[in-house]
Amino acid sequence: SRPRDLGIPFGVLPSGKLNAITDVEGLKVGHLTKIEGESIRTGVTAILPHGGNIFQEKVPAAIYVGNGFGKLAGVTQVQELGLIESPIILTNTLSVAAGIEGIVRHVLSQDGNESVQSVNAVVGETNDGFLNDIRGMHIRPEDVIQAINSAEPGEIEEGNVGAGTGTVCFGWKGGIGTSSRVLPHSLGGYTVGVLVQSNFGGNLQVAGIPVGEKLEKYPFRSAIEKADGSCMIVVATDAPLESRNLERLAKRAMMGLAKTGGIASNGSGDYVIAFSTAEEIRSKYNAESGSLENLQTIRNDDMSSLFMAVIEATEEAIINSLFAAESMTGKEGRTVEALPKEKILEWIKSNHPN
Amino acid sequence: SRPRDLGIPFGVLPSGKLNAITDVEGLKVGHLTKIEGESIRTGVTAILPHGGNIFQEKVPAAIYVGNGFGKLAGVTQVQELGLIESPIILTNTLSVAAGIEGIVRHVLSQDGNESVQSVNAVVGETNDGFLNDIRGMHIRPEDVIQAINSAEPGEIEEGNVGAGTGTVCFGWKGGIGTSSRVLPHSLGGYTVGVLVQSNFGGNLQVAGIPVGEKLEKYPFRSAIEKADGSCMIVVATDAPLESRNLERLAKRAMMGLAKTGGIASNGSGDYVIAFSTAEEIRSKYNAESGSLENLQTIRNDDMSSLFMAVIEATEEAIINSLFAAESMTGKEGRTVEALPKEKILEWIKSNHPN
Amino acid sequence: SRPRDLGIPFGVLPSGKLNAITDVEGLKVGHLTKIEGESIRTGVTAILPHGGNIFQEKVPAAIYVGNGFGKLAGVTQVQELGLIESPIILTNTLSVAAGIEGIVRHVLSQDGNESVQSVNAVVGETNDGFLNDIRGMHIRPEDVIQAINSAEPGEIEEGNVGAGTGTVCFGWKGGIGTSSRVLPHSLGGYTVGVLVQSNFGGNLQVAGIPVGEKLEKYPFRSAIEKADGSCMIVVATDAPLESRNLERLAKRAMMGLAKTGGIASNGSGDYVIAFSTAEEIRSKYNAESGSLENLQTIRNDDMSSLFMAVIEATEEAIINSLFAAESMTGKEGRTVEALPKEKILEWIKSNHPN
Amino acid sequence: SRPRDLGIPFGVLPSGKLNAITDVEGLKVGHLTKIEGESIRTGVTAILPHGGNIFQEKVPAAIYVGNGFGKLAGVTQVQELGLIESPIILTNTLSVAAGIEGIVRHVLSQDGNESVQSVNAVVGETNDGFLNDIRGMHIRPEDVIQAINSAEPGEIEEGNVGAGTGTVCFGWKGGIGTSSRVLPHSLGGYTVGVLVQSNFGGNLQVAGIPVGEKLEKYPFRSAIEKADGSCMIVVATDAPLESRNLERLAKRAMMGLAKTGGIASNGSGDYVIAFSTAEEIRSKYNAESGSLENLQTIRNDDMSSLFMAVIEATEEAIINSLFAAESMTGKEGRTVEALPKEKILEWIKSNHPN
Repeated sequence: SRPRDLGIPFGVLPSGKLNAITDVEGLKVGHLTKIEGESIRTGVTAILPHGGNIFQEKVPAAIYVGNGFGKLAGVTQVQELGLIESPIILTNTLSVAAGIEGIVRHVLSQDGNESVQSVNAVVGETNDGFLNDIRGMHIRPEDVIQAINSAEPGEIEEGNVGAGTGTVCFGWKGGIGTSSRVLPHSLGGYTVGVLVQSNFGGNLQVAGIPVGEKLEKYPFRSAIEKADGSCMIVVATDAPLESRNLERLAKRAMMGLAKTGGIASNGSGDYVIAFSTAEEIRSKYNAESGSLENLQTIRNDDMSSLFMAVIEATEEAIINSLFAAESMTGKEGRTVEALPKEKILEWIKSNHPN
Repeated sequence: SRPRDLGIPFGVLPSGKLNAITDVEGLKVGHLTKIEGESIRTGVTAILPHGGNIFQEKVPAAIYVGNGFGKLAGVTQVQELGLIESPIILTNTLSVAAGIEGIVRHVLSQDGNESVQSVNAVVGETNDGFLNDIRGMHIRPEDVIQAINSAEPGEIEEGNVGAGTGTVCFGWKGGIGTSSRVLPHSLGGYTVGVLVQSNFGGNLQVAGIPVGEKLEKYPFRSAIEKADGSCMIVVATDAPLESRNLERLAKRAMMGLAKTGGIASNGSGDYVIAFSTAEEIRSKYNAESGSLENLQTIRNDDMSSLFMAVIEATEEAIINSLFAAESMTGKEGRTVEALPKEKILEWIKSNHPN
Repeated sequence: SRPRDLGIPFGVLPSGKLNAITDVEGLKVGHLTKIEGESIRTGVTAILPHGGNIFQEKVPAAIYVGNGFGKLAGVTQVQELGLIESPIILTNTLSVAAGIEGIVRHVLSQDGNESVQSVNAVVGETNDGFLNDIRGMHIRPEDVIQAINSAEPGEIEEGNVGAGTGTVCFGWKGGIGTSSRVLPHSLGGYTVGVLVQSNFGGNLQVAGIPVGEKLEKYPFRSAIEKADGSCMIVVATDAPLESRNLERLAKRAMMGLAKTGGIASNGSGDYVIAFSTAEEIRSKYNAESGSLENLQTIRNDDMSSLFMAVIEATEEAIINSLFAAESMTGKEGRTVEALPKEKILEWIKSNHPN
Repeated sequence: SRPRDLGIPFGVLPSGKLNAITDVEGLKVGHLTKIEGESIRTGVTAILPHGGNIFQEKVPAAIYVGNGFGKLAGVTQVQELGLIESPIILTNTLSVAAGIEGIVRHVLSQDGNESVQSVNAVVGETNDGFLNDIRGMHIRPEDVIQAINSAEPGEIEEGNVGAGTGTVCFGWKGGIGTSSRVLPHSLGGYTVGVLVQSNFGGNLQVAGIPVGEKLEKYPFRSAIEKADGSCMIVVATDAPLESRNLERLAKRAMMGLAKTGGIASNGSGDYVIAFSTAEEIRSKYNAESGSLENLQTIRNDDMSSLFMAVIEATEEAIINSLFAAESMTGKEGRTVEALPKEKILEWIKSNHPN
């Protein structure tokens, strides 16, 4: 059962039905998990903004760079045009090339894309090289295509799965996590969903409890331990937002990460990819020249509740990833332990007695 | 008569009726010129995106920083919200405070703004301290308000006027210049207008003729001469553009500056302020909470002709400023000569014999 | 007594002697508090990076825009040149012009600056218009100069003082707060100091306790309350950092704000101004042409501990501002209550029994 | 013979010995040209900032996005850390994955990199799909490694070679071009080198002559022709510049592109990658923790002559690419003609009679 079900509180806004990024209607997620032999602990996670041909119906999007020590592909075109035109792939640091090639081959082969000669692949990564033989580059374009093809709406597996298979977070086993928030009807009733690949360090806090300190696991304790790592955060919403306000939304996801005790350390590649699934503001590839884009979008003044939603959902998604991930042994016999959940639950119960 | 009337060619797109930023309908410009005694050679230029209450009907806008050695006020709010909510003021470097205070007092006093407590004043500047006693801070808020109140549609005075009174460009007397372009009907028929306050250095080219070299007036000729200075560029269009594409448009204005031989030297504060006057995409201050913005805007794919228009109009506006400016004597008896127009015309005629 | 003295924990790194931005050696702070009649509740806070002529010995600096709904002056030149050349002024939104004029007059009048014709004034603001007659524009350039001249090293008054006189934070009385961290000798022994002008909203957390929820004071509770407001954050360090790494440091301050429950709401002007006081990397105005800058700076790989320091110090500075601020009555008889400290201390004690 | 040898003038600063990016000492360039059958017209160009292990001795670097409609890989890490740690690869749009994989395999296999688990590959591209079967993805990682291994100092082949094999520029055959400038001794004596992959549109000007108009080949002439395409620009210098001033330098390269008549059209991916080869400011991968970076760098005030150098060299490199490229027939029997050089030379001679 997930932290929320165990009584751990995460803010004031209600989650969606699944408490997952797939609460945003139409969105699909697929995992490809690669656990082979003693050293391969890696994978791919694909996020499809909608079930149609994304190249033909591009979605408004933005990318925010929390800390740019990473290899995220596709960033400048998203920033320039304000659109995403393909599935989003998460994987490991040295498999970004496989991610791009997989997306490109997928898009070129789709019906209707026969004359397409340019594809902006968005591929995020974190470094799973502590548990995974990352130098072996074991993810291939075919794996990426398989992750895309397996994508589905509905419940999402969390923890040691897909791109989260081999990741480490706050010194414990990290992985994939997801969460969502739904605004009250009076504030538009929009849904905001978040999915994270957690692989970063810092001074872990769960629901305000200084877990890192209590467990004596935090950076610089002995002036030796490093806090490096990375976090990929994908934010989806059905609220009609254009790229500028999506970038503002993306930026707030880092504030949710901060609440878990993350510090965006020097070596961390922390990125937020945000998009709107609202059908009426998609950009049609075959629109007639001279026709206008129809961007009926949310006003600046109405953004704050969406900001709060993404902060809460990001914090919860990260903690979800830690609670779902199980201990794993990988490369060179190294083991990364799962978070000691029982202890944390005890602390939280004594602090939140109601 | 202006360079175009003298046969100097500037690109392939036709200009508007006035060949001025005021070809963009509804836009108003006002100058306050302050020439007093032997040392005061400065002024204020006000650009009003429309004739209504700009705070109540904000216009989509963007600011592009060509080179940030300048004191432009108001930049972060325009970038964050994508809107301009006041007249734009150009003046000298040490009078930005007067510019802000003038705008704020103007906005607070307008009908309908009785409860306004926050105003984002956009004030650009260049340094006229070679001819003007800039340390005397001779522009006061009242001057700024007067420039705003005197703003009118129609023809615009160029040269030693308003914020261009004391400026120097390519070693010659600079000043205010303006130009416009109108797209063919098949490309939307939109108008793009540019107004510049020219005060920068480089290696002057007029219609491709290397004037700086021919006159032996260019930077680093003797490894001594400096190319410093600044250029403020204001771009207006009636094309319905949201802030992202306005920023892209603004960025191209620097390419027009490049064609005059400008180099955006270290000490140059080169900024482009761009906005759309399209009425239907203005942001109403009193819009109902929860209502959507109506941004029917031009598609990315249709931007290129606007880019070409702004490049051509910026180049022409700068050359116009140089042709209109007359020799001026100011502070400490210094004289800056007007551009030797006759010579340039001769060269151009022999190069463009048709 | 301050929160830390009352047993409220803030992270793992030790604070400096004063737990204030003035733990960074040489730095000076001055307040000008203006409480007059029933409606004037405002002021000015001046931060001087060092005690010398700052224009002649510029300090490496960066500005990070957390949310750009604000009027911060001086931002583009700091970003372009990586330097601050004047005192930093904090005040109210409609007094930015007074702040700029005050700085300019101060710099022009300093010994050695007799020929200076260009000054980049850095002026931050938040909106104190709930308690203060902000439209009256009661801060004048002379007030700003007085704040600069009164600046001193040593202890700093917190709460309803200087630029924090009339501010509101999380629905309670906000104000000025400050804190610092000192790195262990093995990590360089550097000091990081933070000063905030707190005036923003969100869902207050103190040491992880969801105070906002417990007190039923948080945004969107009834889908009516707004979270708007702003936060100015000034970060100083004696670590030798050039502008790029100062910008990264500045960015982390927003993560400290996030830990207090701030959400960087739409209407919030959240800015971080960071600079290094390290003497050996200052930029001399009168350096010989062709000489090189001496930037012996901290390596990227050694930045993480500084990031952690600024996150902790920002969180503590904000909470300090709330604990120091006392209830205040101002414009139109409005009262903003002080934070109910006793209650919070009880909650914290029961949660942190050791 | 190259344009300069034919009497075409390009500014006022002298070029280096080779008038090529390889005038910057230690820099190496390698081409892999792939012309196969009737449809494969593509290639790879590798630029190595120095002859050593670049991962172990990273170079200060910056990337400027002129127009982000492109797939440039590696951008955020360069911007965050201010360093390039691998060869730079240019190729076609759909071969970015091959470029990344080639670089990664190359770096992982180098002596001393046995434990490296993270490589930031910088791969630029333009779209050669008019002449090349780009959807066939004919560039493989091995081709990329071969281009890297073949890199040499000295003269550089221009035109239809490497990444320029199939490109089109201003409607004529484009390709690879290069140029350089050397500053006078009194300005530091530094060298600036530029290499371009020219594949963009606009209204061609050569030495100020409106060639596009004279040949009736320019965008929007019939409101139909598109100006799309892209330009990759690589800028190298031996001047000791840190990332901030390298970004400023990179930004000026777009001003050189502007002088050829480029307009950075919507579909153009225009990027500038700039780095310093100065040995003393490289960042050592194995530097001791706590040691300082030694950044003795050029002062802001001394940047302007470098700006002028990069503008001139970029303009010339683009024109060089057009003069070197020969007519080519490719995919679907399409032919792109070489620039009609004779005509242009005639026009230029009659305009520059000396």
